[in-house]
Amino acid sequence: MSIQELKQQVFQANLDLVKHGLVIFTWGNVSGIDREKGWVVIKPSGVSYDDMKAEDMVVVDMDGNIVEGNLKPSSDTPTHLELYKAFPSIGGIVHTHSTYATAWAQAGCDIPNIGTTHADYFSGNIPCTRDMTEPEVKGEYEKETGTVIIERFSELNPAHIPGVLVKNHGPFSWGKDPHEAVHNAVVMEQVAKMAFIAYQVNPNLTMNELLIQKHFFRKHGPGAYYGQK
Amino acid sequence: MSIQELKQQVFQANLDLVKHGLVIFTWGNVSGIDREKGWVVIKPSGVSYDDMKAEDMVVVDMDGNIVEGNLKPSSDTPTHLELYKAFPSIGGIVHTHSTYATAWAQAGCDIPNIGTTHADYFSGNIPCTRDMTEPEVKGEYEKETGTVIIERFSELNPAHIPGVLVKNHGPFSWGKDPHEAVHNAVVMEQVAKMAFIAYQVNPNLTMNELLIQKHFFRKHGPGAYYGQK
Amino acid sequence: MSIQELKQQVFQANLDLVKHGLVIFTWGNVSGIDREKGWVVIKPSGVSYDDMKAEDMVVVDMDGNIVEGNLKPSSDTPTHLELYKAFPSIGGIVHTHSTYATAWAQAGCDIPNIGTTHADYFSGNIPCTRDMTEPEVKGEYEKETGTVIIERFSELNPAHIPGVLVKNHGPFSWGKDPHEAVHNAVVMEQVAKMAFIAYQVNPNLTMNELLIQKHFFRKHGPGAYYGQK
Amino acid sequence: MSIQELKQQVFQANLDLVKHGLVIFTWGNVSGIDREKGWVVIKPSGVSYDDMKAEDMVVVDMDGNIVEGNLKPSSDTPTHLELYKAFPSIGGIVHTHSTYATAWAQAGCDIPNIGTTHADYFSGNIPCTRDMTEPEVKGEYEKETGTVIIERFSELNPAHIPGVLVKNHGPFSWGKDPHEAVHNAVVMEQVAKMAFIAYQVNPNLTMNELLIQKHFFRKHGPGAYYGQK
Repeated sequence: MSIQELKQQVFQANLDLVKHGLVIFTWGNVSGIDREKGWVVIKPSGVSYDDMKAEDMVVVDMDGNIVEGNLKPSSDTPTHLELYKAFPSIGGIVHTHSTYATAWAQAGCDIPNIGTTHADYFSGNIPCTRDMTEPEVKGEYEKETGTVIIERFSELNPAHIPGVLVKNHGPFSWGKDPHEAVHNAVVMEQVAKMAFIAYQVNPNLTMNELLIQKHFFRKHGPGAYYGQK
Repeated sequence: MSIQELKQQVFQANLDLVKHGLVIFTWGNVSGIDREKGWVVIKPSGVSYDDMKAEDMVVVDMDGNIVEGNLKPSSDTPTHLELYKAFPSIGGIVHTHSTYATAWAQAGCDIPNIGTTHADYFSGNIPCTRDMTEPEVKGEYEKETGTVIIERFSELNPAHIPGVLVKNHGPFSWGKDPHEAVHNAVVMEQVAKMAFIAYQVNPNLTMNELLIQKHFFRKHGPGAYYGQK
Repeated sequence: MSIQELKQQVFQANLDLVKHGLVIFTWGNVSGIDREKGWVVIKPSGVSYDDMKAEDMVVVDMDGNIVEGNLKPSSDTPTHLELYKAFPSIGGIVHTHSTYATAWAQAGCDIPNIGTTHADYFSGNIPCTRDMTEPEVKGEYEKETGTVIIERFSELNPAHIPGVLVKNHGPFSWGKDPHEAVHNAVVMEQVAKMAFIAYQVNPNLTMNELLIQKHFFRKHGPGAYYGQK
Repeated sequence: MSIQELKQQVFQANLDLVKHGLVIFTWGNVSGIDREKGWVVIKPSGVSYDDMKAEDMVVVDMDGNIVEGNLKPSSDTPTHLELYKAFPSIGGIVHTHSTYATAWAQAGCDIPNIGTTHADYFSGNIPCTRDMTEPEVKGEYEKETGTVIIERFSELNPAHIPGVLVKNHGPFSWGKDPHEAVHNAVVMEQVAKMAFIAYQVNPNLTMNELLIQKHFFRKHGPGAYYGQK
């Protein structure tokens, strides 16, 4: 795929965030990576979705240097770069402030895996990161945001848990490409909403753990039988 | 009715799920049955609603063998088949992951019949199934999903309770045809939402049981007087 | 105003219920009264809003006899008639199963007057009726629904409290004409939603009672100064 | 900027309230100020957003006398004037009854700063005013509404906290111009919703206070690096 095509994909994925109701104003960003070139394509910082064009997407190298583009990249670019470096299997990343997922991040709680909707996409809870320290916040804050995410995944598989909540901030999700990362952002918002309601209805609810393995591997891996493949 | 007409009905009913906001992505399916032929028409597995055409609907026999169609049927087909076999009065089935009904399923709670909106369509609570066992989940899972629903209805009349919650999964509903099954799916989502709010407002609320009989039989059975019939 | 014009008003008001998101399917009805003729114009029973035309509106006299129209009137017609007889100042009535107002009705609770949005339209709480008795439910149920509403207003002014919750059922609202009755139905739904959230945020919240008089009479009565009049 | 241009800005900002879902009926108003002339342009009272035109905007001086316009200004005009006098840095003001912010106002609680969405725009909690006294409510009520807001900001910087909740009433927000005031009204509604959900999920949640300074000053002041500036 050419960089032009990746720009088009990233641009479209950014618009899809708005279409799915995950973003208002400029509160979100999507990136995609060309692993061969080592280049990341990302939304420009603070540009309105209404005015944005595919050619406004910014191309940076893995150190954050601008390779192509006349605009500044998203201020969250260093977070994206850390994740691409640590998680070699992923090809696209999304950050939003979507309502319910952000509320769980503000609550500082993992979103528990309590239903098959969740288990169809995540093999466990959606984890929430720890509080960032003063050196992390006052230092290279956006890069350190990536660091605390990666730390949280030290014993988790990012291909099986394609998203995270950054405490008091909001969700990040990822996938094999920008389109799948957006798809997973929609899933996170929906399972965050349903888990909120479910716990209001029954604070002592229980999950049948057998369903997690069943549903995740019905859709993922060698034994998958969902869909047309 | 010809199979072509049933395909058209099932196709339209699937689109109606999206129109009523019950389904995002491919998270839902509708089927209809031709009782004379013993054939069931159902949505293909994992196909986007945007791309789907009436001729993509898959025809299977009561053992799940494909009679017509080039695509794989919904992975939930065995659940539908079990319900059609056990409930001879029904002609259409819907499965969704609609937000509030799914949240009640995740909570593992019956939706209590606490208002006339509910009683207009259901003569009692909307029941939730028990936890499935390891042999059920690891065996013919989708077929066993049907089994636990049918078990839950051993003392319930599926014509008077046209829907169920599968624990930690989501709602199934049914009706005399696919259109009515969709209608009942909309009702379940709405009464699930209202019951959630009502119990938040007053955890000790009471139902006037007299209203259940009154409202259900005002719309159903020989003494019905609602509508133009 | 001619009966044709009133039919048009009632028809438009019924459509406005859908536009404001208060009604799905056929779950609502609006009527208007011609006090001189003693005729009430009301929505037909169980007719889809999509198919409905102005000429489908049914005209009945104060005993519920059909004066004009080929369709059966709403099954709630006897409730409307009782209210028109008891509350001479009102010219239009609305019944819906709108989400939050219905949830409060299911909770069996008055909607407390805790903000100026509420006080701009209602000089006190929106009352909820008592449980109906077996003779009332098994007898002339829809007429008796009117009776329990009127009983609830024995010490309330329907011109200052233009709506009610029928326990385990849903809201009725009214106004000087069908349009104003719809307006008040929208207000009830909105204040029901805001009161639900407010009590979740702070179960011990307090109302500054001074604001109720101030806001209600800023918009109503001889000293009103809101708007262009 | 000419008064005609300011009228156009204020008119557009009023329509934007509807577009963003913050206002139904006539429940909101926006104003803008020309500091040189000492004139304020504001929405007329009780006029429907559907019928409103730019030339309907009313121009008043700082004492509330009409300078231009054939309609009565918003009944909340004296509140706007007090705020413009006390907060010299602001150029536009918005008042709405938006759902979640109003619910917090009804709850009588400050909206706590528990996430970066909030901290991107407000350097602290969004404060709620005290109960107004009998002389304040029965006297120059709308002017005194301004007084209690200003009192609440005696130790707060309105440029860093661009909004307030008036107890049992609803939110006011402001900005350097009418457009920014609307933007802040949208932010307030969104953070009010997320804070409601977050506290339902975890009543004992904690905020990492370090994030407040970081996020606010990442977007505001001399060290800002968000956006294209």
